[in-house]
Amino acid sequence: MEIKEIAGGVCAPKGFKAAGVHCGIRKNKTKKDLALIVSEVPANAAGVYTSNLVKGAPVVVTKNNLADGKAQAIICNSGNANTCNTDGIRVAKEMCSLVEKVSGIKANDVIVASTGVIGQKLSIEPIAAAMSGLYSDLGNNSVDANEAIMTTDTTQKTVAVEFTIAGVKCVIGAIAKGIGMVCPNMATNLIFLTSDVSITSKMLQKALSEDVKSSFNMISVDGDQSTNDTCCILANGLAGNKIIDSEGADFEAFKTALNYCTVKLSRMIAKDGEGATKLIECKVSGAGSESMAKNVAKTVIKSSLVKAAMFGADANWGRVLCAIGYSGEKVNVNSIDVTFVSRAGELFVCKDGYGVDFSEELAKKVLSEDEIKIIIDLKLGSYKAVAWGCDLTYDYVKINGDYRT
Amino acid sequence: MEIKEIAGGVCAPKGFKAAGVHCGIRKNKTKKDLALIVSEVPANAAGVYTSNLVKGAPVVVTKNNLADGKAQAIICNSGNANTCNTDGIRVAKEMCSLVEKVSGIKANDVIVASTGVIGQKLSIEPIAAAMSGLYSDLGNNSVDANEAIMTTDTTQKTVAVEFTIAGVKCVIGAIAKGIGMVCPNMATNLIFLTSDVSITSKMLQKALSEDVKSSFNMISVDGDQSTNDTCCILANGLAGNKIIDSEGADFEAFKTALNYCTVKLSRMIAKDGEGATKLIECKVSGAGSESMAKNVAKTVIKSSLVKAAMFGADANWGRVLCAIGYSGEKVNVNSIDVTFVSRAGELFVCKDGYGVDFSEELAKKVLSEDEIKIIIDLKLGSYKAVAWGCDLTYDYVKINGDYRT
Repeated sequence: MEIKEIAGGVCAPKGFKAAGVHCGIRKNKTKKDLALIVSEVPANAAGVYTSNLVKGAPVVVTKNNLADGKAQAIICNSGNANTCNTDGIRVAKEMCSLVEKVSGIKANDVIVASTGVIGQKLSIEPIAAAMSGLYSDLGNNSVDANEAIMTTDTTQKTVAVEFTIAGVKCVIGAIAKGIGMVCPNMATNLIFLTSDVSITSKMLQKALSEDVKSSFNMISVDGDQSTNDTCCILANGLAGNKIIDSEGADFEAFKTALNYCTVKLSRMIAKDGEGATKLIECKVSGAGSESMAKNVAKTVIKSSLVKAAMFGADANWGRVLCAIGYSGEKVNVNSIDVTFVSRAGELFVCKDGYGVDFSEELAKKVLSEDEIKIIIDLKLGSYKAVAWGCDLTYDYVKINGDYRT
Repeated sequence: MEIKEIAGGVCAPKGFKAAGVHCGIRKNKTKKDLALIVSEVPANAAGVYTSNLVKGAPVVVTKNNLADGKAQAIICNSGNANTCNTDGIRVAKEMCSLVEKVSGIKANDVIVASTGVIGQKLSIEPIAAAMSGLYSDLGNNSVDANEAIMTTDTTQKTVAVEFTIAGVKCVIGAIAKGIGMVCPNMATNLIFLTSDVSITSKMLQKALSEDVKSSFNMISVDGDQSTNDTCCILANGLAGNKIIDSEGADFEAFKTALNYCTVKLSRMIAKDGEGATKLIECKVSGAGSESMAKNVAKTVIKSSLVKAAMFGADANWGRVLCAIGYSGEKVNVNSIDVTFVSRAGELFVCKDGYGVDFSEELAKKVLSEDEIKIIIDLKLGSYKAVAWGCDLTYDYVKINGDYRT
């Protein structure tokens, strides 16, 4: 199946518009802090959310609004997570009502999300004051919407792809924010996907729920799981394909395109982890089960010692083996091979659990690249998994030592 | 029961001698790297070890040597973990044989331990060459032995206490090393305890195994679990108390004194975590079960975001709540209170899951101290737990970004 990347982000599929403005939640007036994404027509929708018991108020409201599988708009602010404050639910609902007032889209067809500091009240006034301007800015402005949902992100995270379902051209677009508190159990921080595919809410939810297991759920920046993780998709059907209402070739085509987008975003999110200078990709093969493959890959990616070694371009493979050993999986320590790979070359460091001689010069070269693969072969079975993370740097500490002020 | 701290470390109990020398495993000649601890008479012994599937060769050899509950000497080197190399078991056994050769203590009555880099061969030659000098140095030299087992530790970790069992004066002494890869499931890195108490091997093992659950197992520096964690105790019976061979008042007295030592060492190990500037103590009360109390306390202590906030003296309590929320425990989010406490005062930040107003000035004062308590009341039941950790600093990254070179 051919998948072609195109421009436009969430506005790439037919019938979607977006906007982003500075409304005043953030003090820095040059940083946009309020985003709106709207479909011209009602869309089927699906979502996955944080499994943290402490949930942001917007997560609660969005879950409720999506219970019927329908939505037409997404409103999202940065600068305040609207979480753990006594007034959160009211404010999150009020944000949906403001969308209804300005657009006519029913409040319960609005997805609401917030990101930023936990525990402070979110004032509705700046949002209310910015609403009509935000609505009139709606257009081909995915970049503005993406900026408005960023916190300490240093890069925009967006993708859009074109593909065909039974000969009909379809599009999926997306924007995401990543950064700290990235260790999702379902979806990482905020990811908004749009599509013009025609698909039932049920199949859309099924596609998304299955997808995140091998995409967003395989990222870890710091092992902390956010209270506000939300990944939502709207599919408005304007592509005109025969509606996907069951499994089969059309559903598989949609899932393949969706996975292309989510894996690309996962890599972007991992690479732009707080303070990160490197993307670390851990590929596990030869596992005895899928869960073993996934668990080993994530345990390695999460190890602070592995992450710090990657920052220092230090081929300290013993830490990789150590992490595999405490993963809780019944691996055979004496059948594990480890190789570090990057654009600069390949470094075989561990065979059957024991160190092999390698060139320190080559090691520095391989590990000084900004994308590093840790390849692990467990030689027990045929299951595979990939996880994405980043290095642990001075800047992670700096950013998180003084986040509120 | 009265417990009095005394000087002398592992040499404080009757009949124990220690020594530490530089033998040459480390290049830095001013740093001791080989320690020996000997009991004049055979001792009962017990140990707990890493649960990492990747185990250092010395762990395997020590476990085997302690199978009969007897030991009389401990030999330990720093600078090389003797782990994940093809020759490890032979070298670890050879270290025990060298002790036998010089002292007459049987090789299988020797506890052997190593700490340092994983995956490199440990050369026996410098150890063999240093052996007779090390043996002749044996004396009241707990400080030297402690220095010899340190890696990136910045402080010595030692304690000794005097107490009575049924009117008989008894002593426990200990030295430990902590630092990175500290997230034990049984015991943290290297802890050697000596005692002149008379107790059977079986009761000694029982006391130690129970103790570590609320002491060393409740520390986390970086969430990584070492391949070489070893905690051993020798009890040579020279105090002359009636032998402890069952539960009862004498056993409880011994356990109380033991716990005094292990908790004190736990706090020292956490406070001296790699790069740490602060000891973080998390006290959980009101839990619905013991495992809930322990799991919540450890999850908070392990959160990179909480640790970075403590480094920055930032009262970002939302991260504490967030960590509780992903602990996997069924807490009631709307009945959680959180308070930060230090010598500088008390800061109540969260009531029933919601933020309360507090003075940022007081917050800075409270969190700028070098020992901070995070007090969490879950208001669900009566179970309690304490966990110890440290802040996450630039220096953690620096130390671990380039450990091998």
